[in-house]
Amino acid sequence: MIDYKALFKVSYGLYVVCSGSEENGNGYISNTVFQVTSDPPRFATCCNKENHTAGLIRKSGVFSVSVLQIDAGAGTIGTFGYKSGKDTDKLKGMNVRYGETGVPIVINDAIAFLEFRMVETIDVGTHLMFIGELVHAEVLDDEAEPLTYLYYRKVKKGAAPKNAPTYIDKSKLEKAADGKDFAKYECPACGYIYDEEKEGVKFDDLPDDWVCPVCGEEKSEFIKL
Amino acid sequence: MIDYKALFKVSYGLYVVCSGSEENGNGYISNTVFQVTSDPPRFATCCNKENHTAGLIRKSGVFSVSVLQIDAGAGTIGTFGYKSGKDTDKLKGMNVRYGETGVPIVINDAIAFLEFRMVETIDVGTHLMFIGELVHAEVLDDEAEPLTYLYYRKVKKGAAPKNAPTYIDKSKLEKAADGKDFAKYECPACGYIYDEEKEGVKFDDLPDDWVCPVCGEEKSEFIKL
Repeated sequence: MIDYKALFKVSYGLYVVCSGSEENGNGYISNTVFQVTSDPPRFATCCNKENHTAGLIRKSGVFSVSVLQIDAGAGTIGTFGYKSGKDTDKLKGMNVRYGETGVPIVINDAIAFLEFRMVETIDVGTHLMFIGELVHAEVLDDEAEPLTYLYYRKVKKGAAPKNAPTYIDKSKLEKAADGKDFAKYECPACGYIYDEEKEGVKFDDLPDDWVCPVCGEEKSEFIKL
Repeated sequence: MIDYKALFKVSYGLYVVCSGSEENGNGYISNTVFQVTSDPPRFATCCNKENHTAGLIRKSGVFSVSVLQIDAGAGTIGTFGYKSGKDTDKLKGMNVRYGETGVPIVINDAIAFLEFRMVETIDVGTHLMFIGELVHAEVLDDEAEPLTYLYYRKVKKGAAPKNAPTYIDKSKLEKAADGKDFAKYECPACGYIYDEEKEGVKFDDLPDDWVCPVCGEEKSEFIKL
């Protein structure tokens, strides 16, 4: 028996993982970034095979990881987490630096960044795991706390998008056992759920200029569940 | 240039990873446990090749992950993190359950646990990465927060032991630039550093029955740095 709620007890940070070059770069939000060996310092990150950035990492052999701060804005998370680089130039308008390998590094909302040369790609099913050797690391803000997935879910009320390793189909989570007159509304861009019961305010009573607290999507785009 | 302090911005939880059986089981503390695919739900964990548990995982093909709570005691962390299963029966005296695969699962200080059947072992250098498919998951305490590596380092003042993927040689970290009359004392069992300047109390002035707040080692065993 698998209680999917137990999976929420596993801790993650939230990162922008970028790859490519100044001419052709892209990035996505990842929560699976972790060190695999200390000597030499190597890290792994998982990326859905469908992700535009996965192709760029394979082609360029480099990637960067920007560690997001706890107050990371909807702009950064919305752009990198819930849009596809196939449709948009996500780096346009962002504060981007280029590392010693030429890889783009997102500075917006970053408290530190790490730059890697890929040493191995492992096929783990729906996702690829990229293992990279650290070539550069820098702290940008030593005071701010890193954003964690727990904080993102609990305080920012964000959800993992379909392509994330930690995506959980809502039908697998226990349905709230109530027959009350409360509804839920889902943001079509990022999956954020507005829960009238939790918030204590009917969705219709929210001001018209209310936007999704996670990605900035307009109220009128929300879908009643 | 690598600023090793940037590596501390990557978020991790803390877990007891166990393997083996009722007759021959062992566990160790890991901070690298993460989901790699959502369908099927598969997780990875990194284990130093020298770890006793690494051999057990290879042999038995099963492992469990117990998610530690934020107030996890020195007993659990000290036993599983800083002792070797080659010398001690770490599971003796612990609250242990056996999963559907027969794997031991540590319940002490756990808020949830996950049980896996191994699907792949990947050699990543000094460490092995085990990829397991989730067969069982349970929440034990839905209120308590998970212990994070950041909290363990900052509040509990713990350090990663030598075999951890995230171990950092102190010489690689910038030395505190002061010539003041403060000393630091290191716990020989777990690497915890007592810093007189931060604590505001001289080590010699601590009571004789003071013990390491991380692993319970006696004051007299501490080494002046």
